[in-house]
Amino acid sequence: FDSKLPSTGTTIFTQMSELAAKHQAINLSQGFPDFDGPSELLNRVDHYIQQGANQYAPMIGIPSLRQAISQKIARCYDHQVNADSEITVTSGATEALFATISAFVRPGDEVIVFDPAYDSYDPAIRLNGGTPVHIALLPPSFAVDWQVVANAITPNTKAIIVNSPHNPTGTVFSAHDLEALYAIADQHDLLVLSDEVYEHIVFEGVKHQSVLRHKELAKRSVAVSSFGKTYHTTGWKIGYCVAPAPLMAEIRKVHQYLTFSTSTPMQLALADFLSAHPEHDEVLPSFYQQKRDFFNEAMSESRFTFTPSPGTYFQLMDYSAIKDVPDTEFALWLIETAGVAAIPISVFYQTPPEDMRLVRFCFAKQAATLSAATQQLVRL
Amino acid sequence: FDSKLPSTGTTIFTQMSELAAKHQAINLSQGFPDFDGPSELLNRVDHYIQQGANQYAPMIGIPSLRQAISQKIARCYDHQVNADSEITVTSGATEALFATISAFVRPGDEVIVFDPAYDSYDPAIRLNGGTPVHIALLPPSFAVDWQVVANAITPNTKAIIVNSPHNPTGTVFSAHDLEALYAIADQHDLLVLSDEVYEHIVFEGVKHQSVLRHKELAKRSVAVSSFGKTYHTTGWKIGYCVAPAPLMAEIRKVHQYLTFSTSTPMQLALADFLSAHPEHDEVLPSFYQQKRDFFNEAMSESRFTFTPSPGTYFQLMDYSAIKDVPDTEFALWLIETAGVAAIPISVFYQTPPEDMRLVRFCFAKQAATLSAATQQLVRL
Ligand SMILES: CSCCC(=O)C(=O)O
Ligand SMILES: CSCCC(=O)C(=O)O
Repeated sequence: FDSKLPSTGTTIFTQMSELAAKHQAINLSQGFPDFDGPSELLNRVDHYIQQGANQYAPMIGIPSLRQAISQKIARCYDHQVNADSEITVTSGATEALFATISAFVRPGDEVIVFDPAYDSYDPAIRLNGGTPVHIALLPPSFAVDWQVVANAITPNTKAIIVNSPHNPTGTVFSAHDLEALYAIADQHDLLVLSDEVYEHIVFEGVKHQSVLRHKELAKRSVAVSSFGKTYHTTGWKIGYCVAPAPLMAEIRKVHQYLTFSTSTPMQLALADFLSAHPEHDEVLPSFYQQKRDFFNEAMSESRFTFTPSPGTYFQLMDYSAIKDVPDTEFALWLIETAGVAAIPISVFYQTPPEDMRLVRFCFAKQAATLSAATQQLVRL
Repeated sequence: FDSKLPSTGTTIFTQMSELAAKHQAINLSQGFPDFDGPSELLNRVDHYIQQGANQYAPMIGIPSLRQAISQKIARCYDHQVNADSEITVTSGATEALFATISAFVRPGDEVIVFDPAYDSYDPAIRLNGGTPVHIALLPPSFAVDWQVVANAITPNTKAIIVNSPHNPTGTVFSAHDLEALYAIADQHDLLVLSDEVYEHIVFEGVKHQSVLRHKELAKRSVAVSSFGKTYHTTGWKIGYCVAPAPLMAEIRKVHQYLTFSTSTPMQLALADFLSAHPEHDEVLPSFYQQKRDFFNEAMSESRFTFTPSPGTYFQLMDYSAIKDVPDTEFALWLIETAGVAAIPISVFYQTPPEDMRLVRFCFAKQAATLSAATQQLVRL
């Protein structure tokens, strides 16, 4: 049986986390915190398990959780979404991305993605017979040139996938980016799939430019988010997506046959916590900015060079002063030599820029972890 | 944005459960127990949550859980599978089915499915550009005529989906069925996708004919199962699939971009429980046979007619003595009149046989629920 994804290997996140474990390296590669979510949230799962909330949740998600999401969206983005028809809870943001792509992309369709791109977009498009059209963003700014995007549009362009705050670069869209995106999407009748899993992790007081902020853009957009990222529970695998009702109806047709529904007791726990603690996501920027600054402060003693990340819990670092080798080679060397695992960036490009000398570190870690890692990194 | 699944509506399970809730009917429609799994299993989730096991599980599943699955397969089916390369834990059996279909079905491929068919197979095949080839099984036996299957094979036939114990009819494959399946699959080089989520719910001492029992058939098969069904935790949404390593490599390429991984604390809890209590699935046949018999005994006072279900936790009933209307109409009437929700069978056929007068009841319920429901049903 031939492979439908012949050039796809094991995702870099699994590769690096496995290597980190093998070499007992400090794992700053795959993006997850090494600390726990709020204990009130954690404790609530058992409450519901003991109450017997262990059977199928409704296909579209627990009503109280969808309600809490809609309140959060109203609070954060001044946007009203109908909790019954415009929100679906999924098995992680990854499922929401896949379900959306499966619902809309057909053979022959082109979908614009920006490289470096999260590695699930391209295979999801290909599995549905579509063609990913990769537009490379380049260091140091990784800014989108919207004229290049406009030039890439063809009659077959169906959708555009955006991701702000951006993984792996940490860049964030400006209000201008959102307008430019809207202008192109509107002119060419494109679906916008907006991966916003780091929506609450933006620094220096900058505002996250959710597609949900933009009344007109929101009408043709699917916004995807993740409770794992916001509540430090990546292993619970609960995310959601938001879209206008007619789009959501199509996404749900796929979701119901893809996973049907998601963990009942964990959804209930999240619903309680979200309603009780809207301040959680409000303090997330300062919580993570403190970690970013702590990490970068320590790294300023190193031979790595960097610009502080504007968003996400990732920091890119230029290692060219240390070793002039490709980033995948450097990442292996780093694990073996410094005992620290990072993510090479070139793997997120269809055609990696030559001489790219960047790796990504995840700073969603306890101070002790960050200290230990930076101590090993500054020695290089 | 046009629909890729124009004829797909909301799954019947959601429709009926919503109607049941609306009419405060006893819900014997969607398949889930109204009792809890073993408390030792339930309590174990919090143990791991408190230990901080709340970040991403490995993409292929927690090692101890895959190990426990492989031991179970050796014990039940006398078959050795490699826990590292031949087992993947998924977000429910539904995800395993979808990932397998996505990994192998391409535009132009035909996939044989037996009607009445679980409603996720057909749209998953269509979303991948394949053509479902429906073969209708007919009451009262719903037996497969393998000559009909052989005649349906074309050069485009890629796979065949089987489901024993069979939902919604409750029929189970015999050893002869397994041999006939093997002969056809082998001759035409077909992939066999075997939905075995009710593998441990088979009555009268009959053996479940897993594709994993058959050394040669297993080489071209993907077997799918569900912890939700076996451990009374359908709301945890954890399942798994088993396949030879080269097939599994392709399924994992899809799984990693479809959901990536599944609830860490729940996988750990299941791993502990499976290793400690292999007897759980051994007592499941008698546990559910007792419920089946209790339900059927009470229903023998009714005007419904039936043959006791050989497997699954579903029982078909013929209602023709009560009302000569299509089954979807009868199911609505039943909710309103008797306050009991059931599943009509015709919705699982591409072309429903005319005059089909069958509904499906789920007897995975407490005695009190079954008593209350049957009291209302015998009055009709
Ligand atoms: C699903 S594993 C990848 C986690 C992540 O978002 C990242 O490391 O970029
Ligand atoms: C995923 S909801 C359907 C549950 C089930 O297996 C059934 O009722 O047949």
